[in-house]
Amino acid sequence: MRIAIVGGTAAGPAAAAEALRCRPDAEVVLYEKEPFISVGACEIPYLAAGWIEDWRRLEVLTPRQFEQSRGGTVRERHLVRSIDIRRRRLEVEALEFGSVHEEPFDRLILATGARPRRLGIEGEDAGNVFHIRTLDTARRLETWLRTRTVRHAVIVGGGYIGVEMAEALRARGIRVSILEPLGRVLGQTITREMGQPLVDAVAAGGVVVRQEAPVRFELDDNGLVRRVYTDRKEIIGCDLVLVSIGLQPNSELAADAGIRPGARDTIAIDEYLQTSAAGVFACGDNIAVPHVAARTPVYLPLAPVGRRAARAAARNASADGRGGRERFEPTVRVMGVSAFGIETAVVGLSEEEALEEGYDVITDRIEYWSRAWLYPGSKRLQVRLLAERGSGRLLGGELVGPEGAGMRANVLVPLIREGYTARRVLAEIDLLYNPPMAPAVDPLIVACSRIAKMADAPSRPRREAGK
Amino acid sequence: MRIAIVGGTAAGPAAAAEALRCRPDAEVVLYEKEPFISVGACEIPYLAAGWIEDWRRLEVLTPRQFEQSRGGTVRERHLVRSIDIRRRRLEVEALEFGSVHEEPFDRLILATGARPRRLGIEGEDAGNVFHIRTLDTARRLETWLRTRTVRHAVIVGGGYIGVEMAEALRARGIRVSILEPLGRVLGQTITREMGQPLVDAVAAGGVVVRQEAPVRFELDDNGLVRRVYTDRKEIIGCDLVLVSIGLQPNSELAADAGIRPGARDTIAIDEYLQTSAAGVFACGDNIAVPHVAARTPVYLPLAPVGRRAARAAARNASADGRGGRERFEPTVRVMGVSAFGIETAVVGLSEEEALEEGYDVITDRIEYWSRAWLYPGSKRLQVRLLAERGSGRLLGGELVGPEGAGMRANVLVPLIREGYTARRVLAEIDLLYNPPMAPAVDPLIVACSRIAKMADAPSRPRREAGK
Repeated sequence: MRIAIVGGTAAGPAAAAEALRCRPDAEVVLYEKEPFISVGACEIPYLAAGWIEDWRRLEVLTPRQFEQSRGGTVRERHLVRSIDIRRRRLEVEALEFGSVHEEPFDRLILATGARPRRLGIEGEDAGNVFHIRTLDTARRLETWLRTRTVRHAVIVGGGYIGVEMAEALRARGIRVSILEPLGRVLGQTITREMGQPLVDAVAAGGVVVRQEAPVRFELDDNGLVRRVYTDRKEIIGCDLVLVSIGLQPNSELAADAGIRPGARDTIAIDEYLQTSAAGVFACGDNIAVPHVAARTPVYLPLAPVGRRAARAAARNASADGRGGRERFEPTVRVMGVSAFGIETAVVGLSEEEALEEGYDVITDRIEYWSRAWLYPGSKRLQVRLLAERGSGRLLGGELVGPEGAGMRANVLVPLIREGYTARRVLAEIDLLYNPPMAPAVDPLIVACSRIAKMADAPSRPRREAGK
Repeated sequence: MRIAIVGGTAAGPAAAAEALRCRPDAEVVLYEKEPFISVGACEIPYLAAGWIEDWRRLEVLTPRQFEQSRGGTVRERHLVRSIDIRRRRLEVEALEFGSVHEEPFDRLILATGARPRRLGIEGEDAGNVFHIRTLDTARRLETWLRTRTVRHAVIVGGGYIGVEMAEALRARGIRVSILEPLGRVLGQTITREMGQPLVDAVAAGGVVVRQEAPVRFELDDNGLVRRVYTDRKEIIGCDLVLVSIGLQPNSELAADAGIRPGARDTIAIDEYLQTSAAGVFACGDNIAVPHVAARTPVYLPLAPVGRRAARAAARNASADGRGGRERFEPTVRVMGVSAFGIETAVVGLSEEEALEEGYDVITDRIEYWSRAWLYPGSKRLQVRLLAERGSGRLLGGELVGPEGAGMRANVLVPLIREGYTARRVLAEIDLLYNPPMAPAVDPLIVACSRIAKMADAPSRPRREAGK
């Protein structure tokens, strides 16, 4: 049994390790085109900030360390160029030598990940324009920041990574402008009122957020971007450009092999993470995953989800017989960003998603204390829960405050997964009370009290007759 | 309908408020012998430390504020001396006037709470010996610390309150000795290895923990304790003594009325929180509550549990017809203490309790990062999970570290309540990953991985044959 795995950033190594555990008899081979596997990509902003002193620390395991501790074979700097599903063959290019050869597989796991989306405008490949994702670009950026004079940086995109990179560059004393067509950071991932504290903190941190998009980069004689032209006819001078406008799944290899694509350029999978090709599985940032309270899968390029999918894919790939064995359980999406002194976390469905799924929803925001209010240093925390009208079933939540938002989002994960209503939380769940850690009534309980009352209220008529 | 509630510290006001919500038509009367209701008793150590500047801030609501915001009638400084179950009458003493009269009730809720256990040794009533529980003793202690010279304090009892008071007195520069027969703080509530970081922090904080118990207090000419004689024949000089050796349920009023007692001097209740007397309910620190994974109720004098019980008792007391209507759901005990820079939290069953309940258990300790390990300031967090051998069902957990222990204990609450196995957590639960808030693999997931592996291992033979 030969299990081949394509992609080594995060899901790939997790899949390889699990396959080796499930089938110690199998030959497990991991292919990665970069020289690194097992990279802590989410720490890149803190490398850029200068808070992590050496880029090598982002390499969690070297290929040889992986082989020694987990087993199997790692082929770094090997590019899988094509898959022949019928003949069960991969066309592999050894990048160091330029040689191309074929390798067989019995089962295949595609952990090809995603790459930064590109603007598609001229000048985007200049030396001072960075699309952050791989360790290679991260170390190039870090070297650039350390060795060049950067006074003003333009960040294109105000999502999580844009905000984290803005904080990183501010920490180096660099002036920062974020270009974001929505006109505010986190515009797409959180409601306006719950995003406001971070919007304010970003502004207070000296970052200018401009409601516009770049249309052209003007290069100087050295081929570096010095001016950004925007769709509002503005011209912004800068020394550095970061592009963080989302991720593009690496699904071309699968598509070229005739594997069925999914929504948003992902690879389509069944509930066992098997692609349309028998014995070929996909996991990580190249798939959309089922969400517990929704019919529509969500694209969720997050390490914990990717790792969980990698383990399930590896177990199913290791299974005897045809097809998968272990259903990949729907996720309860939980995401967060902490920057400029504000923690923001979202969990479950957004209001927009819930409405799209056909839920009649109720939602309200409460503000309460992160610790006992009398305890020195206790901060205000805002919680906005989303629930189904009538039943009061919890569908999602947003939390924001200087502390305690992220970990409380985690408490909501099993509650949403198990279909708890707000009233059931009040009737069944006791949370920690200790003044330095949590108030007598936790903000989550305060929020559930509010939702429980609203859930009992009669539904507003959808249309008012005769008006 | 007249609903009478005895006791106004925490559970009583919660019960009164809920009864008023359920039955706006009912006459709801709350009796409290002290001048205060609705007291934040857990903040008393921080008042003693001088971190809360005014004892009045511990009074969350005055009696009049309660009446104005919640409705009903508050009779503070009214002592309920006896209950006549048959005639549905209370004998009430108005302490301000010394008058005694009878008042009727249709339903009765006993929220009589608990009092500090006493040592029962001579000199315990001296002016510089404090049994901390009520706002009245708290303000007396705070005044004492502010106006007298206290160089060395002896704290009897090394539980949560003893540790918190030790931190408070150290913050005032007072030398502190804890007398604790177990020889270490938190000796009864946590395993030795998981208690060690706090034991070390208490020692590093300059607190001496002595494995002994007081047998006699020697008073000076002013009637103050100046020397503590111990069971090890030691003599310890001091200016102040705090006694914190646990709580004694206030169940005498119920017992005198012929209501059936429960274990450990509590009031016996059924699953609707009704006592042996029809229409008489009990809630708060005077009852033992069911625990989700155990047959034996646990005595758990914690505000969130008391408040939840108060609401259930009030709803059942407000219900029409006889007896209760809403089952009081078993708790998943979660408790914690944060002092001397260390957070310690326990959740679910202890190993000892699980063994008593007949579980064959597995347990192991992991140590991991509270945030991404590369993120500046990330700390080590220890997690020790307890699970059933074979199934791997989670029964309990202990968490300790400088940060992130308390909130993670809360995440375990719904998982334990819903009977999750460690393997099911790995297969179904995604937790937050964001370097400033949590590492890519949360310590809870690392701990579940360990337990899942152990659960699959064959059971050790209970006895080894022929040896």
